[in-house]
Amino acid sequence: MNLSTLTWTEVESYLKTKNSLILPIGSTEQHGPTGLLGTDHLCAEAVSAGVGAKLQMMVAPSVNYGMASHHMAFSGSATLRPSVYQAMLADIFRSFYAHGFRRFYVVNGHGGNINSVGAVFQELKHEGMQGASFALYNWWKLPEVEAVSKKYYGDKDGFHATPTEVSLTFHLAGIDHRPFEETPQKGNAPWPMTAQEVRQVFPTGAMKSDPGLARGEHGKVFLDLAVQSIANAIQQAAVIE
Amino acid sequence: MNLSTLTWTEVESYLKTKNSLILPIGSTEQHGPTGLLGTDHLCAEAVSAGVGAKLQMMVAPSVNYGMASHHMAFSGSATLRPSVYQAMLADIFRSFYAHGFRRFYVVNGHGGNINSVGAVFQELKHEGMQGASFALYNWWKLPEVEAVSKKYYGDKDGFHATPTEVSLTFHLAGIDHRPFEETPQKGNAPWPMTAQEVRQVFPTGAMKSDPGLARGEHGKVFLDLAVQSIANAIQQAAVIE
Amino acid sequence: MNLSTLTWTEVESYLKTKNSLILPIGSTEQHGPTGLLGTDHLCAEAVSAGVGAKLQMMVAPSVNYGMASHHMAFSGSATLRPSVYQAMLADIFRSFYAHGFRRFYVVNGHGGNINSVGAVFQELKHEGMQGASFALYNWWKLPEVEAVSKKYYGDKDGFHATPTEVSLTFHLAGIDHRPFEETPQKGNAPWPMTAQEVRQVFPTGAMKSDPGLARGEHGKVFLDLAVQSIANAIQQAAVIE
Amino acid sequence: MNLSTLTWTEVESYLKTKNSLILPIGSTEQHGPTGLLGTDHLCAEAVSAGVGAKLQMMVAPSVNYGMASHHMAFSGSATLRPSVYQAMLADIFRSFYAHGFRRFYVVNGHGGNINSVGAVFQELKHEGMQGASFALYNWWKLPEVEAVSKKYYGDKDGFHATPTEVSLTFHLAGIDHRPFEETPQKGNAPWPMTAQEVRQVFPTGAMKSDPGLARGEHGKVFLDLAVQSIANAIQQAAVIE
Amino acid sequence: MNLSTLTWTEVESYLKTKNSLILPIGSTEQHGPTGLLGTDHLCAEAVSAGVGAKLQMMVAPSVNYGMASHHMAFSGSATLRPSVYQAMLADIFRSFYAHGFRRFYVVNGHGGNINSVGAVFQELKHEGMQGASFALYNWWKLPEVEAVSKKYYGDKDGFHATPTEVSLTFHLAGIDHRPFEETPQKGNAPWPMTAQEVRQVFPTGAMKSDPGLARGEHGKVFLDLAVQSIANAIQQAAVIE
Amino acid sequence: MNLSTLTWTEVESYLKTKNSLILPIGSTEQHGPTGLLGTDHLCAEAVSAGVGAKLQMMVAPSVNYGMASHHMAFSGSATLRPSVYQAMLADIFRSFYAHGFRRFYVVNGHGGNINSVGAVFQELKHEGMQGASFALYNWWKLPEVEAVSKKYYGDKDGFHATPTEVSLTFHLAGIDHRPFEETPQKGNAPWPMTAQEVRQVFPTGAMKSDPGLARGEHGKVFLDLAVQSIANAIQQAAVIE
Repeated sequence: MNLSTLTWTEVESYLKTKNSLILPIGSTEQHGPTGLLGTDHLCAEAVSAGVGAKLQMMVAPSVNYGMASHHMAFSGSATLRPSVYQAMLADIFRSFYAHGFRRFYVVNGHGGNINSVGAVFQELKHEGMQGASFALYNWWKLPEVEAVSKKYYGDKDGFHATPTEVSLTFHLAGIDHRPFEETPQKGNAPWPMTAQEVRQVFPTGAMKSDPGLARGEHGKVFLDLAVQSIANAIQQAAVIE
Repeated sequence: MNLSTLTWTEVESYLKTKNSLILPIGSTEQHGPTGLLGTDHLCAEAVSAGVGAKLQMMVAPSVNYGMASHHMAFSGSATLRPSVYQAMLADIFRSFYAHGFRRFYVVNGHGGNINSVGAVFQELKHEGMQGASFALYNWWKLPEVEAVSKKYYGDKDGFHATPTEVSLTFHLAGIDHRPFEETPQKGNAPWPMTAQEVRQVFPTGAMKSDPGLARGEHGKVFLDLAVQSIANAIQQAAVIE
Repeated sequence: MNLSTLTWTEVESYLKTKNSLILPIGSTEQHGPTGLLGTDHLCAEAVSAGVGAKLQMMVAPSVNYGMASHHMAFSGSATLRPSVYQAMLADIFRSFYAHGFRRFYVVNGHGGNINSVGAVFQELKHEGMQGASFALYNWWKLPEVEAVSKKYYGDKDGFHATPTEVSLTFHLAGIDHRPFEETPQKGNAPWPMTAQEVRQVFPTGAMKSDPGLARGEHGKVFLDLAVQSIANAIQQAAVIE
Repeated sequence: MNLSTLTWTEVESYLKTKNSLILPIGSTEQHGPTGLLGTDHLCAEAVSAGVGAKLQMMVAPSVNYGMASHHMAFSGSATLRPSVYQAMLADIFRSFYAHGFRRFYVVNGHGGNINSVGAVFQELKHEGMQGASFALYNWWKLPEVEAVSKKYYGDKDGFHATPTEVSLTFHLAGIDHRPFEETPQKGNAPWPMTAQEVRQVFPTGAMKSDPGLARGEHGKVFLDLAVQSIANAIQQAAVIE
Repeated sequence: MNLSTLTWTEVESYLKTKNSLILPIGSTEQHGPTGLLGTDHLCAEAVSAGVGAKLQMMVAPSVNYGMASHHMAFSGSATLRPSVYQAMLADIFRSFYAHGFRRFYVVNGHGGNINSVGAVFQELKHEGMQGASFALYNWWKLPEVEAVSKKYYGDKDGFHATPTEVSLTFHLAGIDHRPFEETPQKGNAPWPMTAQEVRQVFPTGAMKSDPGLARGEHGKVFLDLAVQSIANAIQQAAVIE
Repeated sequence: MNLSTLTWTEVESYLKTKNSLILPIGSTEQHGPTGLLGTDHLCAEAVSAGVGAKLQMMVAPSVNYGMASHHMAFSGSATLRPSVYQAMLADIFRSFYAHGFRRFYVVNGHGGNINSVGAVFQELKHEGMQGASFALYNWWKLPEVEAVSKKYYGDKDGFHATPTEVSLTFHLAGIDHRPFEETPQKGNAPWPMTAQEVRQVFPTGAMKSDPGLARGEHGKVFLDLAVQSIANAIQQAAVIE
């Protein structure tokens, strides 16, 4: 149930019996020399679509730009300042809340967005958005997904341009695999790093990961797992009892 | 050349000989009882993809949310405050400028975005973004497109949920046509209208238009025309001489 | 009816039968070596005063600073960032709206303000400013004015420090004319330009115009034309019917 | 030396030997049933013009809107939020500083602006605006002016819509005097007051003052005194030695 | 080494050989009917002082207000909007960075601050704050602390007004213990909750915790544990190798 | 009555009969080579605590950071931009107002905060914070305090790192006195100064003062005087009658 391809009258009907909305958020940023710049929003969109189909839930249009300043030393990366990103997300939630949506499920494809998303939830609470619930799902951190990543890649999944996320986009893009030549990490820098520090320490953009292990067929596994796990989580959505 | 599905190394190569970027911007908002909520970003994306293919130019990920406060009385519409929208767009341009992009072509699907886009161009000039050029293409206002709209729909194209834009999305979505029952306009209100005023005056969301005239095959014509017209405009891009 | 020289009790009386307000907005920026830095606000004020007198409408104090960053490489120019300019204008409208003004007629003397004014109208709509109508009159773009500019100056009116606007200020300042020596345009730059680019391409500050053609007596004609045209437009103020 | 009626080349010449700028700032707000809404900016402009003429100093266009929220319960008053007002003033100073102005003399007509002006000076220092000096002259608080106010009006000058400021505008507007019927103060409220509280306690808008004592001829005296006092102060401008 | 009680010359000396700064951040908010409103900043200050003493590190003055909107339905709680809180923290870091501090250790006493602190670190990276490292220590979540909480309180530690944090403040304030009568949770609400929802579900302000178990002597244990654990963590501060 | 060490139920009880709140605000900034960096907040806290005890009034946690950009060229100083500082203070007042506090007494230890505090009071009035009263006490400027400063130090009190404020902190910190070698002022600079200008003109950070005259026993006198003076002022708190 893709909100973009529905009419306002169809959404109005949906809201008579349901109040859930899935919002995919991602980023546009380097994912190493073999990964796609759109990895984070492509993954979030695909997982969201799967969950929406499985649970008959409405999926909002994807937010394709996120907080990625630490990747800015690699061509094609784009970033919003955290303050701007938070203001934008807050307006989107306010909009959908105004129509009666109440249960918001954010499917996130990018680690750099997490703090800001949490702060937005708080900003909205601060305003007194009664009855709204917010849940954030970072698909690659779901225990079920991490278990399989571990099985496939051991300690080579790293923390950026991971074979896990690269596999998922390969599946989406019909790519089987791409060779990747590991480059030794050049020293280190305190974390969090600036863009210049990331470039210097991780010259390819892959961070302690080996995206050469990525396979399109793995991606299908990860997609299904992430969809199923989030669908389960939503259905058991913890309330404080 | 979809930036989302390329790698940072491919963008780096592109920037060795080119510095153009197409940015599709749209909105998520009601388009009458038969039009899609994503009409404005779907059209912008499709036209951008066409222009990118024709001119071998890089196309950035779409900005799916815009300034649509006047549509907020119809379910599923979303809006960013102009100030927030401008801050977000400015960050996107700053990001791509940092990598060496200089010629920015914005393909816009929504009238409500126009003022803000212009203000962003000025804000960036204010900062002294040397060497950057900005052009805004509102695809539905291109003379070539307007001429055919006139031919097909006479004075029934109106100014929102027009058969022109609805046709383009029908083409994209594989819809032939959908019946639309016109509802008489209920009085009037000073323009620009608030959300409540739009709802009251135009109860279906269509504004002086008859989207029942939309046809998928028309959409194909409009898409090709818009792509060709913008491609021409870019190639002849007026500089002050 | 100059609000500045009336008392609050007089405005209160006015509001019992009327709800219109004219707001002159301009800029402080270079207008070539013969034009006045205050051209844009002086013209807006004069035109506003004329319209106010003709229609017995209240005229608010002028906003003398605008969005002029592209003129900052010429001494004496001043500029507000678009975001700041918009926030200021919005507060002014909110203030007058709070007293019961509803029909706002903005008489603008500067092209650089246009995007921001439009965005402010949208921001106010976003807030739900019920019953307010906004109209923007760029006095030099009125068809009646443009026709006479064309008659007097042919293609020498250009687009900044035009003989049209310079004439109007000469009329106000009691100047007959001032000689102007054209300087060849030095190459070109993509538009919109930064301050440095404007200075380089148009070394005198006049942009494709010949302000040496300006005459005080022309200014009287333009002033009368602009006043009459805007008065007509206000009286026929289009509502959507 | 009115910057608005000079050309950029004239300002450039001025800056070869001088770097002083006078900025008149005022407000648009009620001044009781006999005082003008523009009192604060009209006074600031007149005093500034006088000082500029006496010292051959450049005078910038007036800022006609200020921080006047406490007067908003009287028709015709307008106000900027302090945060917006500060942002606007800061941009104006930044603009003139960029051209080489260094000594800024702010002639203020409104008490409500004082805190914000001080905060702006600090914000600019925070940015490191080297070599700039800022001085604020509240014309009605100059000792020479206060002494004559005391002589003319004793304890009837009050603190808003004072006969002192009303006299100055009467002089400018060619008014001799206007009768004023005092209304008893209705209780009191903690200071600072909101708009509603001011209206309730001071129903005419005059605050502990008797503007019925104002005379046009007094205004001439005040204007000359203020001009002379500020000119003296500027010439002896205290540096820390 | 309390920066507040040192002189600038002493800090200058410190910076010749060290570049570490500990910043305690807390909140002012309800901690149930027996806990102190200042719990979160009192704990952060005490732990910071201990770490500073143990490692001979500079400790900056405490930030006593935080993001606590969900506690606002209980008297005495105060909150900053996340956007404001982030802007303030960023200025503090920028200040100390300007003097040469590079390793920032934030000792946090309040869960509601976590997202904003993370976003601030990113905002500073976005600006390119080269060479700075940031670490956040939420003292009550340290594994060593959690283990003892579990031992003392089992599943009665809950997640707000926990006996752990209450014990620490009792130790600081010389209180032995205070009786607490548990009130049954009233239903539930989706998390995160607004202020009204928290009040309704957790009428005493304690959230699934039994602060009646708190003991001053426990607090001493927690304080020592937290100090030791953070000191250890700082000394082993993970860099990416 | 230190709010930080009370419970929400105790504050609730207090608010049944009282609505006063004392807020200490200070700064973290250089106070010469012998004065403490925390001087301004330590003094504000101590004076506030004294007033609170004498009048049985609630004292909120101290705001330890202020507007100190002009001191940033001395190690250990920290500053908030005026705009950020104002936003933070406003949120604190809004929070306490929400619980029923109405009479706000700000005890300030730093001159650089004064403009911003005044602007915040106005911003809150702008919002219509009915029934709230605000008073600002700059403890070192109280006539009673100034008289004793004059008696003790004659014209050596200067205007920063004054023996008055240094004495008060010496009293608090148990210091008797510290020797101070005066350094000749190096020329002068227009006021207000940037950080670099302050450093250059006043190389020790003391500004026209001789903190070598400070004595701990003086501090006790100043503290008692300030407490008594503010307590008197609060009790006679001027309302407009």
